[in-house]
Amino acid sequence: MAAYTFYTNPRSRGLIASWALHEVGADFAMVPVGWREKPPALLAANPLGKVPTLVHHAPEGDRVVTEAAAICSYLAEEHPEAGLLPNPAERGHYHRWLFFAAGPLEQALMARMLGWELPAEREGTAGFGSFDRTVAALDVHLSQHDFACGTRFTMADVYLTSQFDWGLNLKLLPRHDAFLAYAERCHARPAYQAALAADRELYRQTKAQG
Amino acid sequence: MAAYTFYTNPRSRGLIASWALHEVGADFAMVPVGWREKPPALLAANPLGKVPTLVHHAPEGDRVVTEAAAICSYLAEEHPEAGLLPNPAERGHYHRWLFFAAGPLEQALMARMLGWELPAEREGTAGFGSFDRTVAALDVHLSQHDFACGTRFTMADVYLTSQFDWGLNLKLLPRHDAFLAYAERCHARPAYQAALAADRELYRQTKAQG
Repeated sequence: MAAYTFYTNPRSRGLIASWALHEVGADFAMVPVGWREKPPALLAANPLGKVPTLVHHAPEGDRVVTEAAAICSYLAEEHPEAGLLPNPAERGHYHRWLFFAAGPLEQALMARMLGWELPAEREGTAGFGSFDRTVAALDVHLSQHDFACGTRFTMADVYLTSQFDWGLNLKLLPRHDAFLAYAERCHARPAYQAALAADRELYRQTKAQG
Repeated sequence: MAAYTFYTNPRSRGLIASWALHEVGADFAMVPVGWREKPPALLAANPLGKVPTLVHHAPEGDRVVTEAAAICSYLAEEHPEAGLLPNPAERGHYHRWLFFAAGPLEQALMARMLGWELPAEREGTAGFGSFDRTVAALDVHLSQHDFACGTRFTMADVYLTSQFDWGLNLKLLPRHDAFLAYAERCHARPAYQAALAADRELYRQTKAQG
């Protein structure tokens, strides 16, 4: 039995978790999940039936991890030998940008996608402040640093790049040079290429099955 | 000089970071920040000028941490002696609920507060699925467990409780028994009481100064 069962769907947030699994060299079994029919084992692990959901078959019992960012963070910690955790000097950046991507950036992109406008007087209340300020904060950081933690790729980049991809593909994010160059650097990772190939293969298979 | 400079505002998300600082017994200097005038040192650390912002004066140089959830996660890791990190068996829960609170729960509460309705056909796209499903997932977990990680208080509870407080105070979250009992358990922490007292004192001081 593989160490992890990975419930996913092609062309979904599952690609983020797949990239993370490939980065740490995890031994995992991929279970594709349809949009309507959910396997009972998935619903038992995660009543929301959302993908990606990861079940780690640990010696003391199964551990369930949901939320793409949580799966990245969990796998980095569970596989320290992969070298994707921050060193102490990088730790501030790591936590900051991982949660920035999972919180304000996700919210800002989602609001824009759905056409939700934040009233100016609520900018102090919303975690993302405003779309423009969220984008500006990222632009400042990525104009000065190659990666979330500075000079070195860490697990924070798996999640941050994935949010960029989503935002750039849907034309929600402006195509700033710093953003494009950052995405290109991260896409060069062999683990990303492997995850992308696996995702495309899964898409072909599920499409062929109707 | 204190080990941390903590930029905050009374009655804001700063209380979350203050609770976390008290939990780990950190040596910190609190700098209140007005809504309009931002100290240059804060803007240098965080161009968004948002609170809470934490600057850790580490030996090799300053580390900046923004986002309340990131500050919780950072402090737990930086102060392992406080015992607020998960043990390996708790690790799945820890990452899952920390990011659930920072992502789907935050988004669901913010959308409700601003009167944003998610179209049903977008439930598969939005990270939070739907408000009702987000609430249901929490209800299932907290009906079965005392804390995010099961039987023991960890740093994930500092952040999750704070999101509950926000949701319950603004009447965005339903007053389920499991939610109220959970909040009460976490509010009994001496560090929460100390942070709340400090927040109230700061509010009195800033109000007195006009």
